[in-house]
Amino acid sequence: MANSSSVPSTPLLKDELDIVIPTIRNLDFLEMWRPFFEPYHLIIVQDGDPSKTIKVPEGFDYELHNRNDINRILGPRASCISFKDSACRCFGFMLSKKKYIYTIDDDCFVAKDPSGKDINALEQHIKNLLSPSTPLFFNTLYDPYREGADFVRGYPFSMRDGVPTAVSHGLWLNIPDYDAPTQLVKPRERNTRYVDAVMTIPKGTLFPMCGMNLAFDRELIGPAMYFGLMGDGQPIGRYDDMWAGWCTKVITDHLGLGVKTGLPYIWHSKASNPFVNLKKEYKGIFWQEDIIPFFQNATLPKDCTTVQKCYIELSKQVKEKLGKIDPYFDKLADAMVTWIEAWDELNPPSGVAAEVANGPAKGK
Amino acid sequence: MANSSSVPSTPLLKDELDIVIPTIRNLDFLEMWRPFFEPYHLIIVQDGDPSKTIKVPEGFDYELHNRNDINRILGPRASCISFKDSACRCFGFMLSKKKYIYTIDDDCFVAKDPSGKDINALEQHIKNLLSPSTPLFFNTLYDPYREGADFVRGYPFSMRDGVPTAVSHGLWLNIPDYDAPTQLVKPRERNTRYVDAVMTIPKGTLFPMCGMNLAFDRELIGPAMYFGLMGDGQPIGRYDDMWAGWCTKVITDHLGLGVKTGLPYIWHSKASNPFVNLKKEYKGIFWQEDIIPFFQNATLPKDCTTVQKCYIELSKQVKEKLGKIDPYFDKLADAMVTWIEAWDELNPPSGVAAEVANGPAKGK
Repeated sequence: MANSSSVPSTPLLKDELDIVIPTIRNLDFLEMWRPFFEPYHLIIVQDGDPSKTIKVPEGFDYELHNRNDINRILGPRASCISFKDSACRCFGFMLSKKKYIYTIDDDCFVAKDPSGKDINALEQHIKNLLSPSTPLFFNTLYDPYREGADFVRGYPFSMRDGVPTAVSHGLWLNIPDYDAPTQLVKPRERNTRYVDAVMTIPKGTLFPMCGMNLAFDRELIGPAMYFGLMGDGQPIGRYDDMWAGWCTKVITDHLGLGVKTGLPYIWHSKASNPFVNLKKEYKGIFWQEDIIPFFQNATLPKDCTTVQKCYIELSKQVKEKLGKIDPYFDKLADAMVTWIEAWDELNPPSGVAAEVANGPAKGK
Repeated sequence: MANSSSVPSTPLLKDELDIVIPTIRNLDFLEMWRPFFEPYHLIIVQDGDPSKTIKVPEGFDYELHNRNDINRILGPRASCISFKDSACRCFGFMLSKKKYIYTIDDDCFVAKDPSGKDINALEQHIKNLLSPSTPLFFNTLYDPYREGADFVRGYPFSMRDGVPTAVSHGLWLNIPDYDAPTQLVKPRERNTRYVDAVMTIPKGTLFPMCGMNLAFDRELIGPAMYFGLMGDGQPIGRYDDMWAGWCTKVITDHLGLGVKTGLPYIWHSKASNPFVNLKKEYKGIFWQEDIIPFFQNATLPKDCTTVQKCYIELSKQVKEKLGKIDPYFDKLADAMVTWIEAWDELNPPSGVAAEVANGPAKGK
């Protein structure tokens, strides 16, 4: 049935995938990922002080961009890229010319599966992205395209082709991705449960998308992967990936694309400081009570046939409906438009991106 | 947080749960379930020839009803209970006076978890039913009420109370629940993947509900658990649980109740004959292409505040919209009404059911 030919057994996509890493420190964590990441090109987005030197272990093929590079490449439009927040990673999404992106935080290490084997997170993400999603009906045995699985009795045959997968959302062993209040209440909770499943998030259902271990098809959904205005000069932080996830889910649902979550796991090594997090998050904790119903009810008109058109339309709705909550959302709506302008400038419709003069630091 | 007090550690519900088993043969399979099922009352619904004697292992507390009992107890309304099809199990749901029902097929055995320990399926179902569901927003770490889990960052706090759980849908190791075409194409496929997860099926999403290993809260959703007209004298079989699942999901969504799927697993021992199954299923395979969009678009008016009202309203919509496909759906719509009449007769609103004269065969 469906799974016999749709997933290649050893996907690599060496020339089709970039790895994007936001960081403020030396990238020693790459040593552990070497067997898995070395074949790929890395786009490192240096956050914070641009005069600081970030060391990248020998042998990796990378480009590194600091704030000065972002300002030079985007000019006035650089205002849409956050500073002092991992939201800056989306600059790397824009800069890449590859079909697929994998983004990972620098405190994430290789996890082990229950048999003790190192998990090749990237390989699983690629499998997820190369096999369809099934957002229109729930399959109780999870991903029907995985080996040893299929659609169960009662699954409509007309829906078994699925839809193209735009996003693969991976999970975390050890430190779970909790908000500050939950961190404070459960400081010692660790995620030790390895759930051997990949599943499609159904159409019409929102989810909290975490940017720690995330892959997506840039051609299908790239322009929606804007991580918003966070951190320095903004009233909020730690909602960058959430913002991208809400927008992305509304747009994938509208365009008939799929979002998968589950495998692969990475090992999340260190919980961030819950007191610092609470300060960053607390407005978001209030605001999300209005933002989520807004996105749950958002509909896009039929003539929104590209991600860009969908995103511009969403920005208008954000301004109109969320602007009432706080002036921040007016600013964010404007930044959403700036983001699309910058995206289109670096990724002209012809498919051939404009050459960026005076290219940034290069490794290897 | 949420999971600290909501789930009792050793749920039993001895006086609150009945086990319903449809069968045509001696119930030797109960031997394996003895340590788990013996504390509970069994309602055995004997299908097929009522003159045949069904043996129940010693020591179980049970009542057994054959077709003659069904006809005597329901009178002319017995027409809504299918004959020669496991759909007859719903007679047991109607007859029970307990708050919870667990129903299981007689070819399902105790499965083992990855550590080799016998799985107490009933205990897990009870845990699922006693903890809330989260149909309004997706939690990427699955059931947030399980030990060691919680709501992830970005999950709205206002939604963390969840909603009452009405249904717990368990899965199957070994023989997966495939339709006849998939059985024919993959005769040797076995489900060996133990996915250690329980999850809520989001609001607005339909799923293929399998009756093999299913528990529910009879008080919350019982009257929607009608397994339809199947088998003898009907043009279709093997869609009994699907029908119940579609109706149940539309009604739980409308009433603000939850449906969980995942753990517990049972060991499904023997695949049914795919050729026989194909004959039973083939009309359903066509029809479900229309039935599923019908249920996906079905809405219930606000004044449908009880399961019975919802179900009667659904029966009208079935007659109006599915009657066009085949006269079978007219008959089914009428049977849905008969089912509710019979349910209300055996379960009068006062909560005290009418005494059934000349009670059926009793064990123990």
